Amino acid sequence: MKIQRRKSNLVNVGNVPIGGNSQIVVQSMTDTDTSDIASTVSQVKALHDAGSELVRLTVNNDNSAKAIPEIKKRLDDLGCNVPIIGDFHFIGHRLLSSHKSCAENLDKYRINPGNVGRGNRRDENFEMFIKVAREFDKPVRIGVNAGSLDPELLNSKMESNAKKAIPEDSESVEREALVESALISADKATRLGLEENKIIISCKVSRVRQMIFVYRDLAAKCNFPLHLGLTEAGMGTKGISSTSIALGNLLLDGIGDTIRCSLTPEVGGDRTKEVKLSQEILQSVGIRNFRPSVTSCPGCGRTTSTFFRELSEEIQEYLESNSKEWNEKYPGSSDLKVAVMGCVVNGPGESKSADIGISLPGSGESPKAPIFIDGDKVGVLEGDSIAKEFMSMVENYVKKRWSN
Amino acid sequence: MKIQRRKSNLVNVGNVPIGGNSQIVVQSMTDTDTSDIASTVSQVKALHDAGSELVRLTVNNDNSAKAIPEIKKRLDDLGCNVPIIGDFHFIGHRLLSSHKSCAENLDKYRINPGNVGRGNRRDENFEMFIKVAREFDKPVRIGVNAGSLDPELLNSKMESNAKKAIPEDSESVEREALVESALISADKATRLGLEENKIIISCKVSRVRQMIFVYRDLAAKCNFPLHLGLTEAGMGTKGISSTSIALGNLLLDGIGDTIRCSLTPEVGGDRTKEVKLSQEILQSVGIRNFRPSVTSCPGCGRTTSTFFRELSEEIQEYLESNSKEWNEKYPGSSDLKVAVMGCVVNGPGESKSADIGISLPGSGESPKAPIFIDGDKVGVLEGDSIAKEFMSMVENYVKKRWSN
Repeated sequence: MKIQRRKSNLVNVGNVPIGGNSQIVVQSMTDTDTSDIASTVSQVKALHDAGSELVRLTVNNDNSAKAIPEIKKRLDDLGCNVPIIGDFHFIGHRLLSSHKSCAENLDKYRINPGNVGRGNRRDENFEMFIKVAREFDKPVRIGVNAGSLDPELLNSKMESNAKKAIPEDSESVEREALVESALISADKATRLGLEENKIIISCKVSRVRQMIFVYRDLAAKCNFPLHLGLTEAGMGTKGISSTSIALGNLLLDGIGDTIRCSLTPEVGGDRTKEVKLSQEILQSVGIRNFRPSVTSCPGCGRTTSTFFRELSEEIQEYLESNSKEWNEKYPGSSDLKVAVMGCVVNGPGESKSADIGISLPGSGESPKAPIFIDGDKVGVLEGDSIAKEFMSMVENYVKKRWSN
Repeated sequence: MKIQRRKSNLVNVGNVPIGGNSQIVVQSMTDTDTSDIASTVSQVKALHDAGSELVRLTVNNDNSAKAIPEIKKRLDDLGCNVPIIGDFHFIGHRLLSSHKSCAENLDKYRINPGNVGRGNRRDENFEMFIKVAREFDKPVRIGVNAGSLDPELLNSKMESNAKKAIPEDSESVEREALVESALISADKATRLGLEENKIIISCKVSRVRQMIFVYRDLAAKCNFPLHLGLTEAGMGTKGISSTSIALGNLLLDGIGDTIRCSLTPEVGGDRTKEVKLSQEILQSVGIRNFRPSVTSCPGCGRTTSTFFRELSEEIQEYLESNSKEWNEKYPGSSDLKVAVMGCVVNGPGESKSADIGISLPGSGESPKAPIFIDGDKVGVLEGDSIAKEFMSMVENYVKKRWSN
């Protein structure tokens, strides 16, 4: 049963289509100082190599703006044609207007309606920003964030809510303000002549349920492609888990055209982890496959836990290290499903439903590991070289099934 | 807005109520050899200390069954009164009938309808199993698993589907068979005299969407409390992410009365990780809080990334290491919300919505970190001891707000 995807406009960002019938794409953001050209180029490339199909960079001052053309050039020289997006706050209108080569070399601009100025300045700055987008025919993301929601809008909504006979709770008011901020800005942009198919919208919030409600509301009220993100998700398991719940929930309901996972990296941690998580989420909900998947049981008192864990880990790493090469040599092999099971309870069953599966002997079971391919038992492994032999069977399976 | 929870019967498992209006509880399973009493007791205790409110053990042979009374006794001696659940397959009817002290000392029995025998033996074995549950007045979990789904039931459903004018896809047939296996068995158990409030149901599947569909169907068709689990979720980020999506989705729809995360531990990995994940999931969807939560941004080119990551990590670890003590000394302090933000874009906003927040200076910003408490700016930190001073402010906040 396919997920019924929400209809949205098609927006082209550089060479990457977003929305419409195009695939849901993964994006990420650098955390290097943008004016440090060498580090930024190297991180953009690393993120792209890890699977990020768009990469965003902050453009927060003149030096960053000046660096953009050279960053784009060096990426081109490296054969890395990933679209790059400029993230602007407070002074985006000024930076884009005074650094035309920056404006030209970016593939999309992100504008935060809460950070463009107050009072009359807000409209003037917004207009200046959109004018540059029109001049260079670039798409814009109207990126609202609960942490920087337009205070004038929020306050006016809070005040009128307080006057209601039965006021709503503050979360509902915040929700309405977030959605309104995005849609009013999109409306302003189109009135200023930006075409509808140049606009993407996001409304990021750091609380899971609030974020889901906001996007459902947005999805119902417009046709712009939506960029999903749980903002400031935090570190470790908490960051991974909350992001997965929020994005997974919306994607399963057909909402979302591009996604980003806002994980806080550990000290010394790898920035590409957020890209991997985006891919895992899309793969878990059955939208896109990026690498072979391993179904493995948690082990219990029936499994000889050391050997079982070792084998699971070895096979996981083996698939991980081969997946990139296989994706190129054997297109389609990312659909591969492998099962590594620890005993006879669910082992044969899960192994049968996988493309290739191994059901290890539990404690007290005969020391033989039956192998299943496409649902049929094809043999039994035993002895010290089970792992090696199984991996070679996996590789043969991949070659046979996905060679051209 | 509260989640509208599905109505279910209340089932008592030892001293822990499940279903009805009771809170959604976390469970886990040991992977020690159950007959190794010392290791098993130590792992049950570790899982319980980590927050597992029920612990399941495999009872797969006579030695394991014989070990149960001593395991229970030693846990009691340690002051660890967590309910323990016996996981039975193939020979549960025989083990429970011939080891009465095992039957008596377990707080719940798990029976897998796909693993009780074939043909006539199936009904006889099932009856023998339920008879023991009645004798000792114990609740039972009817735990169906796609990896061990009753093959007779599945085949008969597949055959009748093939004869349909428009046959359904095999996933739909599997889904129906899973739900039917659980509900037929529950019906059999009640006909054998087991009270309705002695039955919990689960239907675990390893694919996210299939698992969600199965539980939605189960939820609509019965009033038994449901034990949620994505079975064989696998390792690392994939395991955490897919489990979070599946369980989070159902919990947000009010489905689920007890949960388990079936992660495959890394070699040398900590078994309690699955407990922590269950807690994170319940906390992310807003159902139960277990520890203070940290909203922290992913950092970008605006943040001085090393210092920002270090501070986020330091504060995360500080809260983690204190949360247990705080939960006892300052009940309610697990609701604490801390924000650690890297720059002026969303920093002040997120810090204001947290109970206590710090907005670090981004690159090029004045080297001062404003602190917000309950939405108000209360001061500014600077210099080398920002982390230490902030943590002491957090501790003071907790003491002040949650002391009796």
